[in-house]
Amino acid sequence: MGKRVLIVGGVAGGASCAARLRRLDESAEIVVFDRGPYASFANCGLPYFVGDVITDQKKLVVASSELFRDRFDIEIRTRHEVLAVDRVRRTIRVRDLEAGTDRDEAYDALVLSPGAAPIRPPLPGIDLPGIFAVRTIPDSVRIRKWIEDRAPKQAVVVGGGFIGLEMAENLAHRGIAVTVLEKLPQVMPPLDPEVGQVVAEHLRAHGVALHLGDGLASFASADGGGLAVVTESGARLPADLVILSIGVRPETQLAHDAGLPLGQRGGIAVDAEMRTADPHVWAVGDAVEVRDVLTGQELIVPLAGPANRQGRLAAESIAGRGRPFRGVQATAVVGVFGLTVACTGASEKGLRRAGVAAFERVYLHPGQHAGYYPGAKPIQLKLIFGVPDGRVLGAQAVGLEGVEKRIDVIAMAIQMGATVRDLAEAELCYAPQFGAAKDPVNLAGMIAVNHLDGLMPLAYWDALAGAQLLDVREPDEFAAGHVAGAINVPLSQLRARFAELPRDRRLAVYCAAGQRGYYATRFLLQKGYDAANLSGGYTTYRALHEVGLAPV
Amino acid sequence: MGKRVLIVGGVAGGASCAARLRRLDESAEIVVFDRGPYASFANCGLPYFVGDVITDQKKLVVASSELFRDRFDIEIRTRHEVLAVDRVRRTIRVRDLEAGTDRDEAYDALVLSPGAAPIRPPLPGIDLPGIFAVRTIPDSVRIRKWIEDRAPKQAVVVGGGFIGLEMAENLAHRGIAVTVLEKLPQVMPPLDPEVGQVVAEHLRAHGVALHLGDGLASFASADGGGLAVVTESGARLPADLVILSIGVRPETQLAHDAGLPLGQRGGIAVDAEMRTADPHVWAVGDAVEVRDVLTGQELIVPLAGPANRQGRLAAESIAGRGRPFRGVQATAVVGVFGLTVACTGASEKGLRRAGVAAFERVYLHPGQHAGYYPGAKPIQLKLIFGVPDGRVLGAQAVGLEGVEKRIDVIAMAIQMGATVRDLAEAELCYAPQFGAAKDPVNLAGMIAVNHLDGLMPLAYWDALAGAQLLDVREPDEFAAGHVAGAINVPLSQLRARFAELPRDRRLAVYCAAGQRGYYATRFLLQKGYDAANLSGGYTTYRALHEVGLAPV
Repeated sequence: MGKRVLIVGGVAGGASCAARLRRLDESAEIVVFDRGPYASFANCGLPYFVGDVITDQKKLVVASSELFRDRFDIEIRTRHEVLAVDRVRRTIRVRDLEAGTDRDEAYDALVLSPGAAPIRPPLPGIDLPGIFAVRTIPDSVRIRKWIEDRAPKQAVVVGGGFIGLEMAENLAHRGIAVTVLEKLPQVMPPLDPEVGQVVAEHLRAHGVALHLGDGLASFASADGGGLAVVTESGARLPADLVILSIGVRPETQLAHDAGLPLGQRGGIAVDAEMRTADPHVWAVGDAVEVRDVLTGQELIVPLAGPANRQGRLAAESIAGRGRPFRGVQATAVVGVFGLTVACTGASEKGLRRAGVAAFERVYLHPGQHAGYYPGAKPIQLKLIFGVPDGRVLGAQAVGLEGVEKRIDVIAMAIQMGATVRDLAEAELCYAPQFGAAKDPVNLAGMIAVNHLDGLMPLAYWDALAGAQLLDVREPDEFAAGHVAGAINVPLSQLRARFAELPRDRRLAVYCAAGQRGYYATRFLLQKGYDAANLSGGYTTYRALHEVGLAPV
Repeated sequence: MGKRVLIVGGVAGGASCAARLRRLDESAEIVVFDRGPYASFANCGLPYFVGDVITDQKKLVVASSELFRDRFDIEIRTRHEVLAVDRVRRTIRVRDLEAGTDRDEAYDALVLSPGAAPIRPPLPGIDLPGIFAVRTIPDSVRIRKWIEDRAPKQAVVVGGGFIGLEMAENLAHRGIAVTVLEKLPQVMPPLDPEVGQVVAEHLRAHGVALHLGDGLASFASADGGGLAVVTESGARLPADLVILSIGVRPETQLAHDAGLPLGQRGGIAVDAEMRTADPHVWAVGDAVEVRDVLTGQELIVPLAGPANRQGRLAAESIAGRGRPFRGVQATAVVGVFGLTVACTGASEKGLRRAGVAAFERVYLHPGQHAGYYPGAKPIQLKLIFGVPDGRVLGAQAVGLEGVEKRIDVIAMAIQMGATVRDLAEAELCYAPQFGAAKDPVNLAGMIAVNHLDGLMPLAYWDALAGAQLLDVREPDEFAAGHVAGAINVPLSQLRARFAELPRDRRLAVYCAAGQRGYYATRFLLQKGYDAANLSGGYTTYRALHEVGLAPV
C-alpha cells in the first residue's frame, strides 16, 4: 500500500502537486480538500469573466473533479474545510461544509496550499452590500449578478495593482464609469513611478478616473441606494459597486495553529524543496515565503507560475526526487485597454529598499518593430543593471505591442545570470513586422555597455546637480517644448557650433529619446567636454516630471 | 590628423561600422563607397515594397547620405564601385559610375562589406524579360513597374526560403496567382521538413501552389507573351513574372583578387574581431564566414542582425577596442499570410549534417495563451537538446500568435548555455491574454527533463522499431482517424483495462498532442510495462506522414 498524501487547497499549487505526484507515484493515495466549490480553477481569468470577455463559467474550471478522478485517480473533496493539523498523530480535522460533519483524516505526507485571502480591512461600512473582492468563482458570479441586477453606473476599484487594473478595464467594458483609488501616488506598485505614469496616462485616456496618493478610510451609504467610498483625505467617491483589490494576505492560520514556523514576512517558512519545519508537511503557493533571486530577500509572491512550479517540486520531494526551487524573480504582465505592462526582476525602488546601491538604469523608447514597416508602436523600456559587473537586474516595459516578448527575453537573461553585454549581443528574431536588426533588447544592452565602458556616461533627470542642459533636437522640436534652462544646439549643427558651449560645467545632453543625445555626447567627450547623455531624453523627462521626479 | 577609413558597401554592416566608428573616433576620415544609388537601405523591407504594404519608397532608406554627413561627418559616395584593392600601397581603385572615371583612394583601414548577390544560374532563358531578383531598391522598383505595366496574372517564385515566401505573400497581395518552385521537398529549408510541412499547408490554404522537390532547368517564352519556367522533371510552369530567390552568393571577388584568403564555405575569412588576413583590412556582413555557436562550423549567414553587430565590432577593432564576435546562432523569422515561422540554433538535419548524434527532440502543440481565455491559437514547437547534458541546441516554431516570442526566449537561453531544466524553470509573463502558468517554453523544458530523467521515455514516429502502438484518446477521436495497427485504450479507462495490453513488446503511446500519452506512459511504466510516449502525438504524426517521415 502506498503513501497517503493529503493536500489542503486545490487551486494552482495544490492541483499541480497532486497531478505531478500521481505521475511519480501510482501507488499513493492522493486526496485534495478545498473549502470552495471548485478545485483547479483559473483564478487569473476571474476579472475577464466579470467583464464578460470569458462568457462561459465552465471555462474557468481548468480540470474538473471528474477529470482528476478519471485521469489521475485523485480524489477531490470540494466544500471541505481543513480545520486543524495534528502533527503528532499525523491527522487533519476536516469539516464537510455541506453535511456539517467533522472527521479526522490520517496522512503520511501533508501539503498545504491554502492560498491567500483578499485583504478586507475592518473599516467602517466594509460589510455594506456592493463591496466585493475577486478571488473565487463565486466572488465573480456575485459581481456579475450585481451588475446584471443593479446596472451600476459607477464603480470604485480600491487598489491600482494588477487585479485592480484588470477589474477597471473589465468594468469599463461593461459600460461602468470607473475610479481607481490607490494609496500610493502611482498605479501598478511593482513598477517604478515614472513607468507607472505611462500606464496612468493610458488609463485616463480610456476614461478611468485615478485617485492616487490617498488611502481608503470608510464606506458609507449614499442617497439613492449607492455607496460612498470615503478616503483618508476626506474625499467621497460615489459608487454603485466597489471592488477591493488592495492585495492579499497569506492564509497561514492553519499552519500557525499547527505550530509550523512562519517567516519574516508572515508566510509559511519552507526549505528549498518546499518542506516546512515538519518533515511530513510541505507548503506551496501564495501562502509561503520564497527567495527573491535578485536580492536574496524572502518574499511572498502571489503568482500562478511560481505556485505551479512549487506544487511540482513538493510532489517531487514527497516522491523522494527532491530538487531545489530556484526562487522567484517576479515576472508579471497585465493588459489594460490594449496597453501591455510587464516587468521582471528588481525595480529601482525595490533595490533601494533592499539597500542595494550598485546599480544603474537605462530608459529607451524604441519601436516594437522596424520603423520602415507600417504600424510600429513605441515601447517604453527601463532596464536596471549592476555596476560595475553589468549583471541584468530587472526590466519594466509598457507599450501596445511586443512588450511582454522583450520582458520574457530579459527574464530568461536574468535567470541565466546574463550581463548587459549579453543583451547587446543577443540574436533575436528580425523581420520587418516583428523586430529590428537592433532589437529593443539589443539597444538596451548597447546603451548600458556604452555607459559601463565609459563611452557614454549617463545622466539622470532626477540627479542633474548643476549641469548645463543641452538640447540637441532641431529648433522646431525645441520650440514645441523643452526643459527650462536648456541651450539648444541641434546635433546637425554641433560640429560647427560646439565652441559656444561652456567648458566649465558638465553638459547634460538630451534629445527626444536618447539617440541624438548619444551621438552628441560622444562628439563632445572627444572634444574634451564633460558631457553625459540624459537617459530616455525628453520623453522620460515628461514621465518623471509628471510624478515629481524631475526637479527642473 | 586621424586615420583614413574606407568602407566598401554602405548597407547593414558597412553603415553600422561607419556610424559606430565615428562615435569612437571623431578624428577619423570615414568614406563609404556603394555602387548602388542608396546606402543604408532596408533590404528586409523590399518584398513589402513590392507588395505595396510599404507604399513610400523613401521609407526604405534608413539613413540618407545627407543624414550621414550632417550627423556623423561621414561621406557616402553612392554609384561608386570599388574595382581593386592594392594592399601593398593601401589604396583602392574606385570607379565613379556616373562620370565613368577611375581614381585611387588611400586608406589606413579598409572595411569590406560587399554583401551577397542573388544567385542567378546561367540557365537557358535566364535573361528573358520578366525574371527578377529582389536585392536592391532598384530591383524592387523594377518589379513594381512590371506589375503596374503588365498586370501579371501568375507568377513563379523560384526558391521557398524566407525571401521566396515573403515574395509569394506580397505578390498574392497584389492579386497575382503564385506558384513556388523549390528543389527540396519542403519549403523553408532552414526548418526540419515536418515543421516546414505546417508552413506548406498554410501556404496552400491561402492559394499558393507549391511545386516541391523539383529543380529549375530553364526558362522559355510562352505563347501570348508570358514565360514558362521549365523544371528538371520537365514540368512547365506558366508565369507572367518570375522571382529568383534561390539564395545568395557572397561577393568575394574583390577580396579574392586582392589575395585575401577565403574560408571553406567560400566567404571571406576573418578572425574574431572581423579582421582579414591583412591587419589593415576588415570584412563584415553577408560576405564573410562566421562561426556557428552550436556546431562550431564556419557558416555564411546572410542576416541583418549579425551584419550590424559585425559592423560595430569592426569599428571597435579599428578604434583599438576590439572585442570578439560571439558567432551566430541563425535566429530567423518570417511572416506568411498571418502565420509566423521562426527558428533559432540548430535544426535536426543541421546537426545530422554536422555529425552530431547526441541530441534528442521534443514536439509540442500548446496554445499561445491560457485555453480559458478566448482566441488561444496553437503553436507548433520543436525543441532540440543535447543528451545527456540537456543543453538547448535549437528550436523551431510555427503558429498564428506568440511564436517569435518563444523563439526569442529560447534564443537567449541558447546564448547563455541554458539546459532544458532552465527552460522548465523559466519565469515568464503570464496573464490570460499573453501566456499560461506553464508557458510553452516551460512545457518544452518539462517534457525534455522528464525524458532525460527517465520519467517519460520519448518515442518517435520515424523510429518505431516494432513497438505496439497504443492510442489513449477517447473512442470518438480514435474513430475519426488513427494510425494503422494502434490499439485504443482511452486514458480514462487505462487503470481498469491495462491488463489487456501486451507485456512482451514496447508500447508506443500516443494521444492528440502528447499530454495524455504522457500520463498513460507514466502509469504503464509504474505497472512494469516498457512504454514510451510518441512526441507530439497524432498532430506530429500527420505532419511527419505528409513528408514521408512516418513509416506507418
